[in-house]
Amino acid sequence: MNDACWSRPCAVPDVDAARAALARQGALTKPPGSLGMLEDIAVWCAGWQGAERPGIERVWISVFAADHGVAAEGVSAFPQAVTGEMVRNFATGGAAIAVLARHLNARLDVVNLGTVNDPGDIPGVHRAIIAPGTANFCEGPAITRAQLRGAMQVGADRVALALDHDADLFIGGEMGIANTTAATALACALLGDEPEALAGAGTGLDEDGIARKCDVVRRALALHADADGALDTLRKLGGFEIAALVGAYVAAAQSRLPILVDGFITTVAALVAVRLNGGVREWLCFAHRSQERGHARVLDAMGARPVLDLNMRLGEASGAAVAVPLLRMACALHREMATFEQAGVSRT
Amino acid sequence: MNDACWSRPCAVPDVDAARAALARQGALTKPPGSLGMLEDIAVWCAGWQGAERPGIERVWISVFAADHGVAAEGVSAFPQAVTGEMVRNFATGGAAIAVLARHLNARLDVVNLGTVNDPGDIPGVHRAIIAPGTANFCEGPAITRAQLRGAMQVGADRVALALDHDADLFIGGEMGIANTTAATALACALLGDEPEALAGAGTGLDEDGIARKCDVVRRALALHADADGALDTLRKLGGFEIAALVGAYVAAAQSRLPILVDGFITTVAALVAVRLNGGVREWLCFAHRSQERGHARVLDAMGARPVLDLNMRLGEASGAAVAVPLLRMACALHREMATFEQAGVSRT
Repeated sequence: MNDACWSRPCAVPDVDAARAALARQGALTKPPGSLGMLEDIAVWCAGWQGAERPGIERVWISVFAADHGVAAEGVSAFPQAVTGEMVRNFATGGAAIAVLARHLNARLDVVNLGTVNDPGDIPGVHRAIIAPGTANFCEGPAITRAQLRGAMQVGADRVALALDHDADLFIGGEMGIANTTAATALACALLGDEPEALAGAGTGLDEDGIARKCDVVRRALALHADADGALDTLRKLGGFEIAALVGAYVAAAQSRLPILVDGFITTVAALVAVRLNGGVREWLCFAHRSQERGHARVLDAMGARPVLDLNMRLGEASGAAVAVPLLRMACALHREMATFEQAGVSRT
Repeated sequence: MNDACWSRPCAVPDVDAARAALARQGALTKPPGSLGMLEDIAVWCAGWQGAERPGIERVWISVFAADHGVAAEGVSAFPQAVTGEMVRNFATGGAAIAVLARHLNARLDVVNLGTVNDPGDIPGVHRAIIAPGTANFCEGPAITRAQLRGAMQVGADRVALALDHDADLFIGGEMGIANTTAATALACALLGDEPEALAGAGTGLDEDGIARKCDVVRRALALHADADGALDTLRKLGGFEIAALVGAYVAAAQSRLPILVDGFITTVAALVAVRLNGGVREWLCFAHRSQERGHARVLDAMGARPVLDLNMRLGEASGAAVAVPLLRMACALHREMATFEQAGVSRT
């Protein structure tokens, strides 16, 4: 897609189906509203699928991995080699998201966009190498224009593949040492916030580490104060995996494929996508509020009420995967519960 | 069991297994602590099962139904006939908990302890009729001594049956028009709280209805100010289904069977059980924080951090059922994730 494609209108959820689902919720054998958020989820799914009685069967999970030049500033508790090592762990089944995908009978798609420590060809990993990592955004733009286009296109291509496989839910995940720093810088630039308000522990920084991360973000924001709009900000402060997520989210929303958003980094990617194309928002369901400091603020900026709050902070799409059974149960309840009339149960 | 049996010591979770599980969590390929509450759950399960790598396979759900004399005071948004009607709806598969039990491949055990509108013999419903409902506790004790012993024994018997079926998790649910009023009165009596702090909308009271409920609870507390201890309070202000839950919880904790607690009424039953026998607390996992006003306070009184907060307020064990996949995923991650060593992933 060229840059103009990202602003092509998104699909619009089916209001009639959502309204019919809402009416059905009122007729099921329970006090009105007593299933709480599970009722909202069923109604959202109805609008997304254009069906009064929706279901979430085929879940597609793309995990995008890439390295970050800003890791050179010492902003992560883990060495940069871990990004490439974890790509292998996703594919061989030992990573959290691999366990969860098996448990959910979901399709796990691992995409390597470029790591410093290249794991090479691995069965089950799609290679879409942009470069062995971004540039350090404390010294210049993280990404070139051509790289940005390429990375976003990778995301859109994975959505096309998900649609080929009749997916009815798209989950994006990420892996990239130092990517909470990139996400924090992006969120600060887009929301006008101070680094202290958003920078968190990531994989496990102590307070000194977080202070260093704030300083790095502050320098980057000063250097790229001329960033103009969501795409240019993404290019200057983002990462390949974040750009792929943005491309995937926009393409999914343009194709009627609902999105379950994971944690801090994916939520920042969702914010970029929404800034780029406001219609994306209608296709986003937020899985959880993570422990990462800035997550709640970025969620609030999109008026998002996440489903779960489990103090998770792993990424990899793990928080979104954990929420999938709740979406499935919300749809099962909606489809299979008896109405007051069917069950012969009295009403007020 | 006679009254003394309820204070027989509970089993004690296996500290060595829990410690081994905690060590394993630290070795898995993720930043330490990054799976949040899922790590806690895996460690609790290890302690309960006495196994470093636990699993939740066979879930047993007993839903106890009974009517309440206090319904005569006009404290519910639904007519009393609904209790018996819903017993049928549980058994025929149209109720929320029936849908969820099917989805979870859990065993659903429906127990009728006595309803005003007796649904009669229904396949899939165990009849353990104590009486067609409790007495109105605004006029005298809700339950006789013999009825209390009988109802608690029913709960203990269902736990014995669950153990016969090799259940590894016990969930109790309840159905009984007006039983949030009974639970509110019980909680006020045990915690020394005012009715206004705990009384909520139940199935859908408006503010006038809640004010009436508070008045009813206040009159009951004054009448039964002489209640002496947890059992006597349960007898004077409880219900047959609440007594069955208390009996089930104590029996489960005495038999090494962990308990997933549902919403407001079951949490009050858990509070009664813990007051009766402190060792019960170690076997309780709290599934969710419901929308019912008093639930958070009763949870706090036991230092409980519930897994979910979905604004549910249905009862029937529905909130606990919705949390089961999270427990299963917590155990699957714990068992199946690779360690740093196995996966060849670098550490800090």
